Amino acid sequence: MDQLFYPKSVAVIGVSEDPQNLARNIVENLFKFQFHGEIFLIGRREGILFGRGICTSLEELREGIDVAVILTPAQTVPGILEACGKKKIRWAVIESGGFSEYSEEGAKLEEETLRIAQKWGIRIVGPNGIGISNIENGFVAAFSPLSPKALRKGKVSLLAQSGGVSLTYLNLLSSASVGISKVVSMGNKLDLNEIDYLNYLIHDPQTEIIGIYLESIQRGRELLESARSTSKPIILHKANTGEASKEIAKLHTSALANDDKIVETALKQADIIRAKDFRSFINAVKVLSLPPMKGNDLVILSRSGGIAIVAADSAERYGFRLFPMKKSFQDRIHSYFRAKVIQPTNPLDLGDLFDFDLYTKILEQVVKIEAVDGIIFQHAAVGDEMEPSRKLILTAKELSLRYQKPVAYCYLTEEEELAYIKRAFDYPIFTEPEDALSALAISREHYNRKRKILKEKLPYFSVERNRIKQLFKRARDEKRDPLLPEAFETLNAYGIPIADYQVVYRKEELEKVIERIEGPVALKVISPSISHKSDTGGVILNLDDFKKAEQAYNKIKQLARGSGDGVLVQKMISDGKEVILGAKRDPSFGPVILFGLGGIYVEVLKETSLRVAPINRLEAEEMISELKTAAILKGVRGERPLDINTLVESLLRLSQLMMDFPEIEGIDINPVKVLEKGAVAVDARIVLSKERGA
Amino acid sequence: MDQLFYPKSVAVIGVSEDPQNLARNIVENLFKFQFHGEIFLIGRREGILFGRGICTSLEELREGIDVAVILTPAQTVPGILEACGKKKIRWAVIESGGFSEYSEEGAKLEEETLRIAQKWGIRIVGPNGIGISNIENGFVAAFSPLSPKALRKGKVSLLAQSGGVSLTYLNLLSSASVGISKVVSMGNKLDLNEIDYLNYLIHDPQTEIIGIYLESIQRGRELLESARSTSKPIILHKANTGEASKEIAKLHTSALANDDKIVETALKQADIIRAKDFRSFINAVKVLSLPPMKGNDLVILSRSGGIAIVAADSAERYGFRLFPMKKSFQDRIHSYFRAKVIQPTNPLDLGDLFDFDLYTKILEQVVKIEAVDGIIFQHAAVGDEMEPSRKLILTAKELSLRYQKPVAYCYLTEEEELAYIKRAFDYPIFTEPEDALSALAISREHYNRKRKILKEKLPYFSVERNRIKQLFKRARDEKRDPLLPEAFETLNAYGIPIADYQVVYRKEELEKVIERIEGPVALKVISPSISHKSDTGGVILNLDDFKKAEQAYNKIKQLARGSGDGVLVQKMISDGKEVILGAKRDPSFGPVILFGLGGIYVEVLKETSLRVAPINRLEAEEMISELKTAAILKGVRGERPLDINTLVESLLRLSQLMMDFPEIEGIDINPVKVLEKGAVAVDARIVLSKERGA
Repeated sequence: MDQLFYPKSVAVIGVSEDPQNLARNIVENLFKFQFHGEIFLIGRREGILFGRGICTSLEELREGIDVAVILTPAQTVPGILEACGKKKIRWAVIESGGFSEYSEEGAKLEEETLRIAQKWGIRIVGPNGIGISNIENGFVAAFSPLSPKALRKGKVSLLAQSGGVSLTYLNLLSSASVGISKVVSMGNKLDLNEIDYLNYLIHDPQTEIIGIYLESIQRGRELLESARSTSKPIILHKANTGEASKEIAKLHTSALANDDKIVETALKQADIIRAKDFRSFINAVKVLSLPPMKGNDLVILSRSGGIAIVAADSAERYGFRLFPMKKSFQDRIHSYFRAKVIQPTNPLDLGDLFDFDLYTKILEQVVKIEAVDGIIFQHAAVGDEMEPSRKLILTAKELSLRYQKPVAYCYLTEEEELAYIKRAFDYPIFTEPEDALSALAISREHYNRKRKILKEKLPYFSVERNRIKQLFKRARDEKRDPLLPEAFETLNAYGIPIADYQVVYRKEELEKVIERIEGPVALKVISPSISHKSDTGGVILNLDDFKKAEQAYNKIKQLARGSGDGVLVQKMISDGKEVILGAKRDPSFGPVILFGLGGIYVEVLKETSLRVAPINRLEAEEMISELKTAAILKGVRGERPLDINTLVESLLRLSQLMMDFPEIEGIDINPVKVLEKGAVAVDARIVLSKERGA
Repeated sequence: MDQLFYPKSVAVIGVSEDPQNLARNIVENLFKFQFHGEIFLIGRREGILFGRGICTSLEELREGIDVAVILTPAQTVPGILEACGKKKIRWAVIESGGFSEYSEEGAKLEEETLRIAQKWGIRIVGPNGIGISNIENGFVAAFSPLSPKALRKGKVSLLAQSGGVSLTYLNLLSSASVGISKVVSMGNKLDLNEIDYLNYLIHDPQTEIIGIYLESIQRGRELLESARSTSKPIILHKANTGEASKEIAKLHTSALANDDKIVETALKQADIIRAKDFRSFINAVKVLSLPPMKGNDLVILSRSGGIAIVAADSAERYGFRLFPMKKSFQDRIHSYFRAKVIQPTNPLDLGDLFDFDLYTKILEQVVKIEAVDGIIFQHAAVGDEMEPSRKLILTAKELSLRYQKPVAYCYLTEEEELAYIKRAFDYPIFTEPEDALSALAISREHYNRKRKILKEKLPYFSVERNRIKQLFKRARDEKRDPLLPEAFETLNAYGIPIADYQVVYRKEELEKVIERIEGPVALKVISPSISHKSDTGGVILNLDDFKKAEQAYNKIKQLARGSGDGVLVQKMISDGKEVILGAKRDPSFGPVILFGLGGIYVEVLKETSLRVAPINRLEAEEMISELKTAAILKGVRGERPLDINTLVESLLRLSQLMMDFPEIEGIDINPVKVLEKGAVAVDARIVLSKERGA
């Protein structure tokens, strides 16, 4: 893909002398950004543009030009691509709109375009975007007029579906003191998609931080795998989270909204940083260009006691600890103060200390303290103080690098001064403390997750899989989902405990079975046609003597007329709290595991946790502990704590089951009764996918 | 207070020729901001400053100077104030630090200062702040150097405890196209406090929006009353919400943190807009300078489909409806588009339409639609497009005013351009759609609350109060809280239903009482010394025959040895869901009413709702409906809905009880059993305040 991002020759197709012509902006951008390769202009009419002739036919070009940039009406694109193929062009950046995002007809044009591309081995960027802008080498092929003065070269590369968002980020990143390497406006992703670009950027030495803006995640699983393969931070701005935006998203770049809860957890698992808006994206980029926040201990230095309090509020919100200053340190700092009207503490209020050299001295003393993980330096200056304040930024930068700790520099000043500093200095500036603290929290999470949760090994459970394979095969051949005993057998094979059960085929066996199981039992119908068992009377509970059981047996037998499947007899578990374990296969992210408290909690409070499988032990533990309602399992009102370990184990085994059998569409283990010792499933259902899996 | 904000003569005390002297900045600010009154300079040494002589003694001044601005070491302040008094100065702005925020000794100095001030009838601003800055008339008495160029005159006035925060807001408001009228840095509020200033600003014709920054709310009730008395919007930035910031807040301006949940609800009740950080404060100010958002119907116009999606996400988050465009309107808009590659819908993607006159045309068409309540106009421009884009802002302003609807203008552009526009234009500019949407939500809430909830009348329940007064008087005389039957009697008098009960003094009565009450009963001890009744065995439940009841009676009698109070026999209520009603008297906000679901819900999920009393019916209804767990009362899993109306009624009556009897410190009605019809309290406790109430 180097040829695409660093071409030696480019043909721009669709230019004209008309000042309203959009493709001429592409040419102008290439000139302004001093692109060094050859540029060829193609248009419908002959003419001269920027001193170069416009060819009316691709025929006239030499063979093997690296990249064609196309901005012509949609219906002309297939023909142009055919001509490109003949000329051995291998990369096409199609910026035209009017394809699948617009109409049925446009969708057909897309199909034809793709067919021709595949015939010639052409790879396509777009359509319906503003193509590629590589600030490194001046290959800026956007059809929007851009200014080299306003764009800063740097270490962030960005992938975006939308052209407008690409432009926005070009601008925001330039004034964020971090700068841009490459931006791809991916448009409809007819051929190349975010995974292709991402894998290129992961290996691109110029790219240190990767940003992605997506309206839909269609290749979730690949995204997670790519993200896990790199140590470069990846920040994702996922829009289109709500119902209202779905309509335009569909029109705009044919995006389909994902279940946002799955997106949220999946990204977290792969340590992809999720930005919920432009501002948090830029905050993340800023903080990731600093050394990492390795722990929780923070010092806040502030020129204003009031703003220090605002910062301390934010620090608490994000779970930081204000590092307690030792007495000796306090004394040293105290001796610096001219008028002794301020207490040295943390937050440290620099108060009416108007000596910038002293700020430097104090800052260095603080950064030096080994146990301190990060620093907020809150500065404010207006008027005459702005000029001498600039040097403080360099001090912060130097100390941050020397001691490898983030010094988040917050600066409240006049808007014009801020604009200048952001443009001129290569150290990130935050404005509000809230921004800086949220950013430091991102850095801490990123660092810890990379170090801890992602490193935890996957458990492996040895399971006799063949028998289950047979069960599923038979069920699929018979075009039904596994029946109750088959589902139980599957879970049992995976070591997920089920309340003791046995299938009874003849009434005469019933007594012996009940005797063996002990205590009250439930009787359950086994039939492919009765899926909502309890609604139809297919489940009869709390049978505590043989007579009642016999009556129940008769009733259920009648219900399942003609079926030779027998009746399932299961031990009643009256103790314990109900929880739900579940799994489903998401079209984008693959198998997803679910956990929640059962009954009223899941119905009223709708609190569940999700993880993309496979999960490791730490993730399984998180699934339980992140729920507020999980406190109920830990023992409230004097009750004894329940067996959370068995739940963790069951979640891990469920995860492996989903990984082992791609033909499983979903699993519902509901309820599971959690006891003081152990946890047993009482009911379960497995649904197979329609198509035969791998 | 006009004399304080618009003085005709000012004495600045504490100046010297020393370039490090802080008080000289005050003088310089007065000059730079062209303060028109007389200025007198007082210092320890003679000298000349800005061409004026420094007097070494207040004695030399004429009598009756309007305001003294004092910035001298704390220990000199009482003496100076004494001298001011003699010279008939009635207003002192004390900017010195080193008072109660710093040390015990400083606290004593404060006391002395206040004593002297009261002796002479001097009112004090501060100490430990940067005093008053009135941009209107140039009375800018801050000791920080300020620049008239950087500060915009306007319609927002601000009260802040902290000097640093005052400066920050001076700067932020100036570049928010709204501008400042007056800023008071209140410091330690030794004498004048936020209520005094607030009441002045409420009647100040130059102030249209009032902003307040507080680290503690000590006069909550007065704050609410003042806020309710005005139609001017009030925005409050309440810092010091967390544990961590409490320490510095105490040091900084002697602030004590309030229970943040009470603060949150109290402000909402009085329609004081709460800003959680600088950014949301400024967003609120911006939107309140626009016409109000009267409803929920929104149109998003955007140059970029991608950013339109981001905006639509935010719109959904804040509960707006994207107004569905009529077909005829769509067609009209559609005919404007040059290349038909974009679908006219809402959000409306203006796409590659590079014609700014068309934007104006479309915007006007949209603003005109009567059913549309507000508009987001999302613009983005860089480079050459920035200059022609400026006119669009004027268009937005003109349309917004003409049609009296908010047009929230979001503009993503180069940082320098944004700085220029914010300074030069008097129409608020948002950057991110998220900011604009959160701001429109503020406007909508403000408008609706003013119109609806605040207008709802208070109910009045006629209650025979004398008997209760007697009960409380006796309890206080005996230095105890009301006993169980007295608490029940009080609630009964207020029409809060209690499960049927009777006090039994002799065992022989027991049988008759149980017969009357019907069904199982509970027996409860009545004794001032046993407060945790159930822990000590003082409550015996579920007594379903007379024999058991008699045994229980004996046990309880033994427990309450020597007390002649009898035993309380109460009907058991086994049905119903448990809820808690409560009330307490907050030192700042006065009586507060609490509601929550009982048992596990309140213990594990800790979800309760609060309101400052008195509450009206709408507020009582909100108290219940705002709880997620309240869904349980509405009937889940096929259960029938419970009697929420009776709960609303009980909350209203509880509110009046707290208002009627200031001697009540707190009430706990826990549990209340809510039934399908009715809701009855099963236990209750009333605590009286130590001091005799009003």
